[in-house]
Amino acid sequence: MPVSEEILAKNASVMPEDPRQMDFQLVRVKNTWYRVQKGEALRNSEDKITISEAKIGKSVSDVGISWTIQAPISFHYKVVETCNLLEPTNSTLLLGHIIGPQQLDIVLNRERQQRRFIVMDQIVDEYYGSKVRKYFEANNVHYKILSLTTTEETKSMDLVLTILQEVHSFGIDRRKEPIIAIGGGVCLDIVGLAASLYRRRTPYIRVPTTLLAYVDASVGAKNGVNFLQCKNKLGGYTPPVATFLDRSFIQTIPRRHISNGLGEILKMALMKHKGLFDLLKSHGKYMLDTKFQSHNELVNHGDIALKTTRLAIETMLEELAPNLWEDDLDRLVDFGHLISPELEMKVLPSLMHGEAVNIDMAFMTFVAYERGLLTAEEKDDILQCMKGLELPVWHQDCSLHLIKKALVERLKHCGGQMRMPLPTGLGMAEIFNDISDDTLEKAFTLWSSECKTTVEDDFLIH
Amino acid sequence: MPVSEEILAKNASVMPEDPRQMDFQLVRVKNTWYRVQKGEALRNSEDKITISEAKIGKSVSDVGISWTIQAPISFHYKVVETCNLLEPTNSTLLLGHIIGPQQLDIVLNRERQQRRFIVMDQIVDEYYGSKVRKYFEANNVHYKILSLTTTEETKSMDLVLTILQEVHSFGIDRRKEPIIAIGGGVCLDIVGLAASLYRRRTPYIRVPTTLLAYVDASVGAKNGVNFLQCKNKLGGYTPPVATFLDRSFIQTIPRRHISNGLGEILKMALMKHKGLFDLLKSHGKYMLDTKFQSHNELVNHGDIALKTTRLAIETMLEELAPNLWEDDLDRLVDFGHLISPELEMKVLPSLMHGEAVNIDMAFMTFVAYERGLLTAEEKDDILQCMKGLELPVWHQDCSLHLIKKALVERLKHCGGQMRMPLPTGLGMAEIFNDISDDTLEKAFTLWSSECKTTVEDDFLIH
Repeated sequence: MPVSEEILAKNASVMPEDPRQMDFQLVRVKNTWYRVQKGEALRNSEDKITISEAKIGKSVSDVGISWTIQAPISFHYKVVETCNLLEPTNSTLLLGHIIGPQQLDIVLNRERQQRRFIVMDQIVDEYYGSKVRKYFEANNVHYKILSLTTTEETKSMDLVLTILQEVHSFGIDRRKEPIIAIGGGVCLDIVGLAASLYRRRTPYIRVPTTLLAYVDASVGAKNGVNFLQCKNKLGGYTPPVATFLDRSFIQTIPRRHISNGLGEILKMALMKHKGLFDLLKSHGKYMLDTKFQSHNELVNHGDIALKTTRLAIETMLEELAPNLWEDDLDRLVDFGHLISPELEMKVLPSLMHGEAVNIDMAFMTFVAYERGLLTAEEKDDILQCMKGLELPVWHQDCSLHLIKKALVERLKHCGGQMRMPLPTGLGMAEIFNDISDDTLEKAFTLWSSECKTTVEDDFLIH
Repeated sequence: MPVSEEILAKNASVMPEDPRQMDFQLVRVKNTWYRVQKGEALRNSEDKITISEAKIGKSVSDVGISWTIQAPISFHYKVVETCNLLEPTNSTLLLGHIIGPQQLDIVLNRERQQRRFIVMDQIVDEYYGSKVRKYFEANNVHYKILSLTTTEETKSMDLVLTILQEVHSFGIDRRKEPIIAIGGGVCLDIVGLAASLYRRRTPYIRVPTTLLAYVDASVGAKNGVNFLQCKNKLGGYTPPVATFLDRSFIQTIPRRHISNGLGEILKMALMKHKGLFDLLKSHGKYMLDTKFQSHNELVNHGDIALKTTRLAIETMLEELAPNLWEDDLDRLVDFGHLISPELEMKVLPSLMHGEAVNIDMAFMTFVAYERGLLTAEEKDDILQCMKGLELPVWHQDCSLHLIKKALVERLKHCGGQMRMPLPTGLGMAEIFNDISDDTLEKAFTLWSSECKTTVEDDFLIH
């Protein structure tokens, strides 16, 4: 590698010649942090000493000093299942984010009245607004509810700034009074971004009211808004302090929205959980019919809807927690999200997110089949399950041209590799970088011939 | 504590009765992450196993499941001193952010031409624009320079969005082509926020061109913009991938701007480094006269300006690295920043940031004196040093009313405690929560009587 060596030799900041390299750890005595070289004995002190996990490297060369800073941050958040979240006697919404009795004491023993700023989707407000208001009134909380139309079309920095103006004029304690978002994924994403920008980080709480948000947006750290016709182009990775899950919200959403959520659940099933796939295949229609309410008792271990959502959340948490800021580009949770962003933004608002994801997954199922990863029976099983969940498996605008364009974008944003998650059986998957154009084209042809005719039926359902 | 116990008992999500608590670590086999209960033996596998530092806790109660997610992120960045940053043969600006020869190979062996998006302050562009352009042309880089007026008045989300539109239409590889900011602190802050929002995190590089930015904005992770007349109300903590320091930029800034930077250096000196204080006291005028160029050779260990900036950077890094996201509210670096934000925004644009900080520090020096932390000699020493650095030590708009208002804001944002860093000698400090109104008032009276007359002289300098 002569090119890079030449450049390295030229540039002491990349790799200094004869560097005098020192590594420091950081130690606090009283209120002051000091550097201590590795191996150096800590000086005697009667004061309490704290050692940080942060490290500073120092490399001295003829050109100057180069410092290397390594600073770890640990994010903590809770995902909490509860019943009757809006019953005034249930303290979860007000106090459920608090960790440990000490913190709780501080909050409860304050003289000042508690304040909460709540952003609620406007449709959610119609259904639940009066219950939410009664909740805060009964708990003697000074509150302000901002009711907004939150859709892919309004999901913008403008709306973030509108929220921030209102937050600012209402006034909250940046440390102790989390902003509460109640709504679907779009509402939770917008509020998450607003809160993480405000004073560089204000805690927020997510209360999902759709099935999709319940199993997807609620679990992770991502937030964002659309920008210049691009989906979630601006955003961040600051997790909420807590997410509160109450399945009863799902009973008021339309049947199509339940299917929408089932799309993301199916993603996790196909990627890593055969048991979850079997639940969807056998009981998908039942869960659609009962809108995930079934027995409505969390303790009932026979509760299919409860089992399904818990498995969806746990499989999702497994994949998200080790990779909260997506530094690792090999992500199974990207399944269904290689082509769908392009498709979703193109046909907006005709496809819902989970529908676009499902069309992507249906195509990818054919790619896996053409590649020899799935048998014909497994492929058919998957498609059958999708149809049972009343999800579209084909779309006229999802052309080979669009697919290839989306995959070029993918390459660009994934460090030059495709990193395509594909099922390698039912409930198992791997990530591939070597899927040929030929395989994609064959998969597209077969997909069109097998699925094209069914699309009209799919749309008749809605 | 009966109140909290009652509430805890009511709410299983805060502290479940009879919880079945499980703690999981996360293990990756091939591309899939699995939960493994602590103590559970890892199953035999021929595949490479990765263990994450993330953890998932699961607590099952009668009300439902509560998951606790703990996800660590590690930020890495470099601060690199160099000479002749804009010489085409110096590869730092293009490659200095890269860690290790492997990454460098990937970048150098790409077929595509390198691309860089550069945001430059408009005044910096006048001085250095042609050198910057020549640099990228000589290195065969496809580049776009956006030249902007970056001041406290233009430091807004609007400008962030303007930058993002241009970045988007230019097109960069989100992983390998960092956005470069060249300018003072405002420019670096705005670009930092834009980059951290774009695609949820795009790497960026800071090139400070003022002394203040050289020792302050360059070193940490903070970015932000003003909002509704409030300083840095919106922002984040995403650090740059690298900061490149070249002292030669400082020779073209006005003398007043050098004083401005000296204010932040003095802060670190007063808080934790007597040696740095002595340098400022003895050689402040010399550094002002020579604009930190002195011998202009980094290797010269007698180089006063070099010693000064290095000490400023290292003391700052010590305090920032262990507390990158400011989770710990007890921060020595907040010295000079309790009252100054209020003052700075009030008199905008008449005071520069370091000047407002110095007025705050001057008042706080009297508070420390009234509290008995400093002797009269030490107090006078500090004020003498400030005047030698040509920094204002008093301002007519910094009334007792404004001071108290600012401290009420401080209380609000610091969890109900004042957390006031005060010098406890020359180059040492502690944080206080019990400074009485009486002490503040006495300090204000003495400060006014000793410093009020000198303010006109201070301003005559500019």
